[in-house]
Amino acid sequence: MTDFTKTKAMFDIPAGVIYLDGNSLGPLPKDAPVRVANMLKDEWGEMLISGWNKAGWMEQPTRVGNRIASLIGAEENSVVMGDTLSIKVYQAVASALELNPERKVILSDNGNFPTDLYMTGGLIRSLNDGHQLQTVNPEDVEDAIDDTVAVLLLTEIDYRTGRKHDMKRLTEKAHAAGVITIWDLAHSAGALPVKLSECNADFAIGCTYKYLNGGPGSPAFIYVAPRHADKVRPALSGWLGHDAPFAFDLDYKAGRGIERMRVGTPPVIALTVLETALDIWDMADINDVRTKSIELCDLFIKEVEARCPQLTLDTPRDGAGRGSQVSFQFADGYAAMQALIAHGVVGDFRAPDTMRFGFTPLYIDKTDVLAAVDILENILTNSLWDTAEFKTKSAVT
Amino acid sequence: MTDFTKTKAMFDIPAGVIYLDGNSLGPLPKDAPVRVANMLKDEWGEMLISGWNKAGWMEQPTRVGNRIASLIGAEENSVVMGDTLSIKVYQAVASALELNPERKVILSDNGNFPTDLYMTGGLIRSLNDGHQLQTVNPEDVEDAIDDTVAVLLLTEIDYRTGRKHDMKRLTEKAHAAGVITIWDLAHSAGALPVKLSECNADFAIGCTYKYLNGGPGSPAFIYVAPRHADKVRPALSGWLGHDAPFAFDLDYKAGRGIERMRVGTPPVIALTVLETALDIWDMADINDVRTKSIELCDLFIKEVEARCPQLTLDTPRDGAGRGSQVSFQFADGYAAMQALIAHGVVGDFRAPDTMRFGFTPLYIDKTDVLAAVDILENILTNSLWDTAEFKTKSAVT
Repeated sequence: MTDFTKTKAMFDIPAGVIYLDGNSLGPLPKDAPVRVANMLKDEWGEMLISGWNKAGWMEQPTRVGNRIASLIGAEENSVVMGDTLSIKVYQAVASALELNPERKVILSDNGNFPTDLYMTGGLIRSLNDGHQLQTVNPEDVEDAIDDTVAVLLLTEIDYRTGRKHDMKRLTEKAHAAGVITIWDLAHSAGALPVKLSECNADFAIGCTYKYLNGGPGSPAFIYVAPRHADKVRPALSGWLGHDAPFAFDLDYKAGRGIERMRVGTPPVIALTVLETALDIWDMADINDVRTKSIELCDLFIKEVEARCPQLTLDTPRDGAGRGSQVSFQFADGYAAMQALIAHGVVGDFRAPDTMRFGFTPLYIDKTDVLAAVDILENILTNSLWDTAEFKTKSAVT
Repeated sequence: MTDFTKTKAMFDIPAGVIYLDGNSLGPLPKDAPVRVANMLKDEWGEMLISGWNKAGWMEQPTRVGNRIASLIGAEENSVVMGDTLSIKVYQAVASALELNPERKVILSDNGNFPTDLYMTGGLIRSLNDGHQLQTVNPEDVEDAIDDTVAVLLLTEIDYRTGRKHDMKRLTEKAHAAGVITIWDLAHSAGALPVKLSECNADFAIGCTYKYLNGGPGSPAFIYVAPRHADKVRPALSGWLGHDAPFAFDLDYKAGRGIERMRVGTPPVIALTVLETALDIWDMADINDVRTKSIELCDLFIKEVEARCPQLTLDTPRDGAGRGSQVSFQFADGYAAMQALIAHGVVGDFRAPDTMRFGFTPLYIDKTDVLAAVDILENILTNSLWDTAEFKTKSAVT
């Protein structure tokens, strides 16, 4: 059993704050400042250029990738780190389309995170050969899968509502229709057990600054199923994805397997911070995290619905049908969220009226949930949000 | 006048090491470990998600971009940070081609760093409409510029020989022929004064871990001339390049000016390290750096040629015609470089026979140069390189 008292003690959360926004940016692992300072001194400072070999910087993207792989049900050496999630979307869609060259439709849903759609749109414009992005409502995805579709591009957990797609069923249906699948795990990795290999997913991508706690702008990851990895031709054919980067050939030759999804020089310092965050994950079982996450979300829903009738649940009530966040709709949700933050409960807001709360068992427990609801109830009952300050305060969350 | 004694004191270079590889990876700024540890604690730890506003993380890519701009002769708000140099090559070439839609040739030279050619090749494959990459010898570039060329893609300083292209003359000739120019400043930024605006360059890109000392894998930059910035249509159309990222529109609308060259979430921690490195640049005048760099390189060439007849100069003798490195050819250069490193002089080697030495006035002075030549002379005169260990040792530099 995971000892969540121990994992909670590994994070540095300011006194008086109940942090329910780890679905947007995870908090600081206590060890990270010393760890990164030591890495700078002992590796960069002492080893200088030789750190690429001596400190293992060059292998870091696959070494860290393998640690992520264990959290998302991926095979050894099938995940590599680098770039941002947006770049990884581009790589995945470009490669997936080449595996299905006769078809022109990329199917997604309008609950997908916008950058997935934007990056796909940019790629389609470059390809300029009749590809089109079709977005349907999330609940209509299954029916829209047919043999005109080249690629199914979905974010497993909706960033607004927390609604969860059924990866196994949709992947099966896609494969039966000859469709290649790409799963964006931005709100899945570290939130719930993902089973990429078991679901036969083709590609997956994700970021590491949400539930994995890698810090602001920490690097993204990409998964390519081993059955495809030596077949895909990288659209972003950078030198570190080359078969022999230090031969400095003028011609590109893709590296072996997942290595070809590397692009440029790896972000060593950021990956070192992420490694510190992943050490905490070594203390946790993702199945325990999921069980406790559902309990915390269930408790929050029950208490809010009993005590805050002003709010309307906008997340699936069934734990199995959602990720690790709960959203409520409230017409004055923006001001209410600002008031909550001012009272120490940090969630976030998505227009037009969604108040989002992330529940992250590594550092959030039942006491936090009950305390947060007390504060929320007080703010709503006494209309503490109804001030000019809270209504106009700017926020990026 | 720049006080190079003061700048040298700002770096943490191990005792007994003469570091002549700052053209590959700059050394650690002494302040970086404490600065990044404090940023993690005071910003990420204390502010959590609100750091995006309160700590200015969201504006960091343009804030840092403006500091780089001052070193490369670029206009205010024309440079933005992010991603890797490889990704920035892709963005620049894709945008440049769209400004010249009737032409199909991308002209480069075979002294360009391979990733520039690889990324262009990947883009051409995606475009799939007859574009071709033409690479000529560096000395033949000028004659190859004609009205069939869409884009001229050059690295100003050759990573092997240090040979410098004439940015002003080649850009003028390119423009006269209706060609859009892209300058890769990987070995220029921080090495010598670059005058992008004065030269009328169209696009420029570069990395920050060489002469700018941003650390292993520190973020890249891209410059777009203000006259083009609102016209280019980003191929990598990520959410943070959107005009209103936090509106979460389903449709992409490019942001204003250089902002549209942002892609995903900015690498905040790595940019913070880079900011520390740039503080040292605030103590230096790039013209003084150039003057001293030429002196140091001249001295090294003179001493090596006088005392090490085994080596053949492979860098332009005229200071104005090279960057801030000196290369010598030596048949057993690999082993000789390993022996040098073992004796505390760190340069690097590029196959088949090039020994590279970078000269970086911020932390290298004449005493270092003379001491390095003493050691080199000893190694060559006494064939200290001629051991099995030095001949077979593996290195990534």
